[in-house]
Amino acid sequence: MKTRVRVGVVGVNGYSGLELARLLIGHPGAELTYVAASKDAPGGLEEEQPFLRGARGLRVTAHDPAVCTAACDFVFVALPSGSSGRVALELRERGLRVIDLSGDLRLPAADYEVWYGHAALPQWGLDEAVYGLTEWRREDIRGAGLIANPGCYATAAELALLPIVNRAKDELKLQSTPIIIDAKSGVSGAGRKAAESRLLGELAENFYAYKVGRHQHTPEIERQLSAAGDAVRVLLTTQLLPTTRGIYISAYVQMGGAVSASQVWSLYQSCYESEPFVRVLPPGQVPQLKHVRGSNYCDIGFCVDERTGVLQVFCVIDNLQKGAAGQAVQNFNVMNGFVETSGLLAQPLYP
Amino acid sequence: MKTRVRVGVVGVNGYSGLELARLLIGHPGAELTYVAASKDAPGGLEEEQPFLRGARGLRVTAHDPAVCTAACDFVFVALPSGSSGRVALELRERGLRVIDLSGDLRLPAADYEVWYGHAALPQWGLDEAVYGLTEWRREDIRGAGLIANPGCYATAAELALLPIVNRAKDELKLQSTPIIIDAKSGVSGAGRKAAESRLLGELAENFYAYKVGRHQHTPEIERQLSAAGDAVRVLLTTQLLPTTRGIYISAYVQMGGAVSASQVWSLYQSCYESEPFVRVLPPGQVPQLKHVRGSNYCDIGFCVDERTGVLQVFCVIDNLQKGAAGQAVQNFNVMNGFVETSGLLAQPLYP
Amino acid sequence: MKTRVRVGVVGVNGYSGLELARLLIGHPGAELTYVAASKDAPGGLEEEQPFLRGARGLRVTAHDPAVCTAACDFVFVALPSGSSGRVALELRERGLRVIDLSGDLRLPAADYEVWYGHAALPQWGLDEAVYGLTEWRREDIRGAGLIANPGCYATAAELALLPIVNRAKDELKLQSTPIIIDAKSGVSGAGRKAAESRLLGELAENFYAYKVGRHQHTPEIERQLSAAGDAVRVLLTTQLLPTTRGIYISAYVQMGGAVSASQVWSLYQSCYESEPFVRVLPPGQVPQLKHVRGSNYCDIGFCVDERTGVLQVFCVIDNLQKGAAGQAVQNFNVMNGFVETSGLLAQPLYP
Amino acid sequence: MKTRVRVGVVGVNGYSGLELARLLIGHPGAELTYVAASKDAPGGLEEEQPFLRGARGLRVTAHDPAVCTAACDFVFVALPSGSSGRVALELRERGLRVIDLSGDLRLPAADYEVWYGHAALPQWGLDEAVYGLTEWRREDIRGAGLIANPGCYATAAELALLPIVNRAKDELKLQSTPIIIDAKSGVSGAGRKAAESRLLGELAENFYAYKVGRHQHTPEIERQLSAAGDAVRVLLTTQLLPTTRGIYISAYVQMGGAVSASQVWSLYQSCYESEPFVRVLPPGQVPQLKHVRGSNYCDIGFCVDERTGVLQVFCVIDNLQKGAAGQAVQNFNVMNGFVETSGLLAQPLYP
Repeated sequence: MKTRVRVGVVGVNGYSGLELARLLIGHPGAELTYVAASKDAPGGLEEEQPFLRGARGLRVTAHDPAVCTAACDFVFVALPSGSSGRVALELRERGLRVIDLSGDLRLPAADYEVWYGHAALPQWGLDEAVYGLTEWRREDIRGAGLIANPGCYATAAELALLPIVNRAKDELKLQSTPIIIDAKSGVSGAGRKAAESRLLGELAENFYAYKVGRHQHTPEIERQLSAAGDAVRVLLTTQLLPTTRGIYISAYVQMGGAVSASQVWSLYQSCYESEPFVRVLPPGQVPQLKHVRGSNYCDIGFCVDERTGVLQVFCVIDNLQKGAAGQAVQNFNVMNGFVETSGLLAQPLYP
Repeated sequence: MKTRVRVGVVGVNGYSGLELARLLIGHPGAELTYVAASKDAPGGLEEEQPFLRGARGLRVTAHDPAVCTAACDFVFVALPSGSSGRVALELRERGLRVIDLSGDLRLPAADYEVWYGHAALPQWGLDEAVYGLTEWRREDIRGAGLIANPGCYATAAELALLPIVNRAKDELKLQSTPIIIDAKSGVSGAGRKAAESRLLGELAENFYAYKVGRHQHTPEIERQLSAAGDAVRVLLTTQLLPTTRGIYISAYVQMGGAVSASQVWSLYQSCYESEPFVRVLPPGQVPQLKHVRGSNYCDIGFCVDERTGVLQVFCVIDNLQKGAAGQAVQNFNVMNGFVETSGLLAQPLYP
Repeated sequence: MKTRVRVGVVGVNGYSGLELARLLIGHPGAELTYVAASKDAPGGLEEEQPFLRGARGLRVTAHDPAVCTAACDFVFVALPSGSSGRVALELRERGLRVIDLSGDLRLPAADYEVWYGHAALPQWGLDEAVYGLTEWRREDIRGAGLIANPGCYATAAELALLPIVNRAKDELKLQSTPIIIDAKSGVSGAGRKAAESRLLGELAENFYAYKVGRHQHTPEIERQLSAAGDAVRVLLTTQLLPTTRGIYISAYVQMGGAVSASQVWSLYQSCYESEPFVRVLPPGQVPQLKHVRGSNYCDIGFCVDERTGVLQVFCVIDNLQKGAAGQAVQNFNVMNGFVETSGLLAQPLYP
Repeated sequence: MKTRVRVGVVGVNGYSGLELARLLIGHPGAELTYVAASKDAPGGLEEEQPFLRGARGLRVTAHDPAVCTAACDFVFVALPSGSSGRVALELRERGLRVIDLSGDLRLPAADYEVWYGHAALPQWGLDEAVYGLTEWRREDIRGAGLIANPGCYATAAELALLPIVNRAKDELKLQSTPIIIDAKSGVSGAGRKAAESRLLGELAENFYAYKVGRHQHTPEIERQLSAAGDAVRVLLTTQLLPTTRGIYISAYVQMGGAVSASQVWSLYQSCYESEPFVRVLPPGQVPQLKHVRGSNYCDIGFCVDERTGVLQVFCVIDNLQKGAAGQAVQNFNVMNGFVETSGLLAQPLYP
């Protein structure tokens, strides 16, 4: 093992930042030397986050780029969109290697402004930032200095659909109708900020769609699915589950002819059989949200519906792990030459 | 108000039967005179179901057709598929008016055997049984002696989609691709029988699809949607929510051209504006599961996605009320000339 | 039935206010003519609270005492402590009959200031306000013009313990040690205001004590338990359940000698057997939170532990019904000569 | 690090057995070579437990003592009480080092038969078995060949109360009244067996006491608390939380005079400050269930109530970790000379 990399987390008071701290505290190749919050009040990490009492000695500070640069070789930035990319670019300019977990560096400026509803960064980092979907961009990630970590819905949708659109469009006789992505997420995906609509009293025993037709991960998914060839259109519908963690994708792909389950199984196996974190289920099995909770796994199942000619693909991840902090640590491992599973070996917390 | 109708419930130990008892205890036109369980051990209803301690004096018995016939004018049968229809037909033959809540009397024998996996009733009651989707079959229900109460998923899917396929196929330029119905249900829909897979330890913080491509409500929905004309194909995907009650339908209908939200709004208004239990939400609003919990309401919202030409329809019901016992009581009201909302006035339990 | 009483609710945007609206919409003797929020933005009640779409036509306004007085004969005030009592007294002075659901009118000024942490009302209404624990103060309530509706924890604790301290202190050889009240509440008891600590992501799968040793219902309970004679001391510990509704009390009373379960059963039966909403469970049965959810019932069970000489009393209520809005409507019924169960007949929502 | 110890788990289909497998798969000093179920149907561990797809290659078998002995140096037995101790003793006789997670080897035969309701083992292993409460029995555990792993409620109660009864009875002027232990547990403590009463539909939004006055951990706690001197009586009340994991203890100890919070804090610090898994919270802080979920931590908080002279002690653990499998692995580490935290470094899963 190489000597430890000195790492920092900016935005440790949000859920993605906390998950990064949780994972990095136990990472054999990382030394967590800097934790900064987006708000002013500093304090001990263990005082602010009593569940992290294991992290004795770490102090949460207000972010200061100079202090951060002195303390770290590598930084994860997990701030709200709008400020996260700006902070990430500034730290990159100071010479640090950086992973930005926000959506700020994933889209061309024009798309960004339409879907995010505010101005893109004037100093735009898209040219430099590598899109960090590890399984499909590993070689680019290895040498990168700046990573745009994928969105949570986007990670699940792309891992589920890239095998089809990249490798098997003709074989599966894909129709030109849009791919329907009916997506569900636990509430931690909406962040830790207080909001009446996310109180337990409002959400327990509840379920509903939100941002219908205008979720900002739509263009991110279309961009990645279209990268290999023809433009692919998706209709992404995002819905809130009364759970803390987890994303569940049910995707519907209209095919033009008969396809067997074993064909589809072979396709997915060929893409993922050597991947440490993607588990393709055999035909007839369906993934469950809780089978990946607290882990970096992505489970994929599928079903060929002969009656209607639709290929259904189901994909689950833990939104804070493979959908955010876990995938970021996976990219950190690739960038630093660590074993890709370092710090990510926890089995799912079940039950 | 007419004099009270003497009513019975067969299958009071299941969730639908319990909900019937809960509703009928407070119904101004009903006198609950007979409650029978599907299992042997009789006892006081309030002893077996302590939450019903308000029902002082009612004794749960093993079902006996002769006793039932003597005690009742009207019976609700809520037993498992396979036995429920048989019991219902026998009571009908004895002269009672009957509502069967199972799937036994909703399908032609051939379809039934394919999708339910066991033999249809030898003495088949489909010819006599009226399909009890109140809003669309009110006149037939009024004079009926035997009702096949719709399935929970089917009720939501049909209320959501009948306006389109019955009234606006041409106007919306419906494509021949299947309608995608991505459906989610609380776990009470699976009944009260003990099963490891439905323990709280397994289901809390979980979510997954089940019976993919083979849920038995599929042919029921296709039959009702196709009744007015061309055959309509649907792909119904059923998924388990970590909630007790509620069904949430997200339906995707591919259109062939531009349609405005106000056109769709007018269509739904014209179908439902005088209905006491169907509430159509204005464009831009999305229904929530908990907004109907504990009530007989059905809330419908929709969204026209111009990018992809897809009309999305969202529909929520409480699976034990509008999806089972509530709709059965609504049909009981129609059949007996009561005000249709009698006994069903409880506002949703929120929060 | 008398003609309908014109009623108003001030504070309809909070959970107690919403529950009042939910109950009064279906009350046969009430006409809901005025609903006011504590915040500024007025709108249709059904727009603000889509689950109440049944309440067509009601407009939520900012509270105006003059408008309220013109529109109503009777008012429920459910505002935060500190402002609620003031609003209630002002409306009472204008001649309305009033029920205040806050803690403002339940304690002498000195106790109030110690436990609530802010100044008592200068124009103090305690002398006039009748403490609205219906089962124990029915005669005083009947003629009252102003009711201080009991606190949620206090209602459960007092219904559980008054039979012992009022009727059987000597018989049970009560010791002078404090009565331990280990209390648990669903999160709706903390109100609807956004707070990070009450997000579903923080509370699901969680449980913890709060305000240890300093919950403001402590002096309310001691005052009521001590009213009949010697001072009774209690140690009230309040804890947050990961549920929306419900209060569960586990009380521990140290006895000085042998007492039989049948003695205790007789005691509770003698107090409550003719009460419509208090259900005493036979020895060996324990109440469950969900057996009263959505209803005005209070279920009480007990256990005599011979090994340790401790009498355990368990008591459950729905905090928004019997612990707030339901008990308020029960008092409204008593004050207006209605049948005491009017508008409160809903059976518990189970499952 | 020493070479890996070959370990087996008997009872891998129950929740404690699964948690053992989950932890041992990632343990640097253990090689999981044998996993047996209590039921007949063998299969791949990853097929039976899809969340453990990381455990490629392990086959679940029906338990066979000879096969087990050949495959392992060390065995964890996690079967139901009644059979678990018998299997453990047989494997111990064959020369394996064994940890039994059941209650079979924790009590003298007379107590066992009264509280467990069936016969004690004829070949009784209590003399040999060391009670595995690591923090208080470390030296005995180090050289032991057979460990009786403590019960989940007992672990929390004893860690909370041993400092008081062992070290500070006089200082705190403990009264002779029983110690009240109001305990709450997530439903996984009741095991994985299907039961109607533990369905999500029954338990969600529910809470209730069970086995009142007769929970089998009562004599275990009294035995351990009394070991150092005078007999200590406790009243243990066990209650079911609508969560999957976690135990929360609220203990009430009557004191005879004034005691300061700093005295109590010093007492607990002196017992636990060098312990890796026990975290004593400073005065004024209260532990939360979710702050230890998925970890082996035990968090303890306390409050001195001056009004009533009661010392309150709050204690939380994850019932499947510190309350079962985690503590068993901790004992395994002690017995094998591994660093005590090996395989137990996962930070709590929060949120």
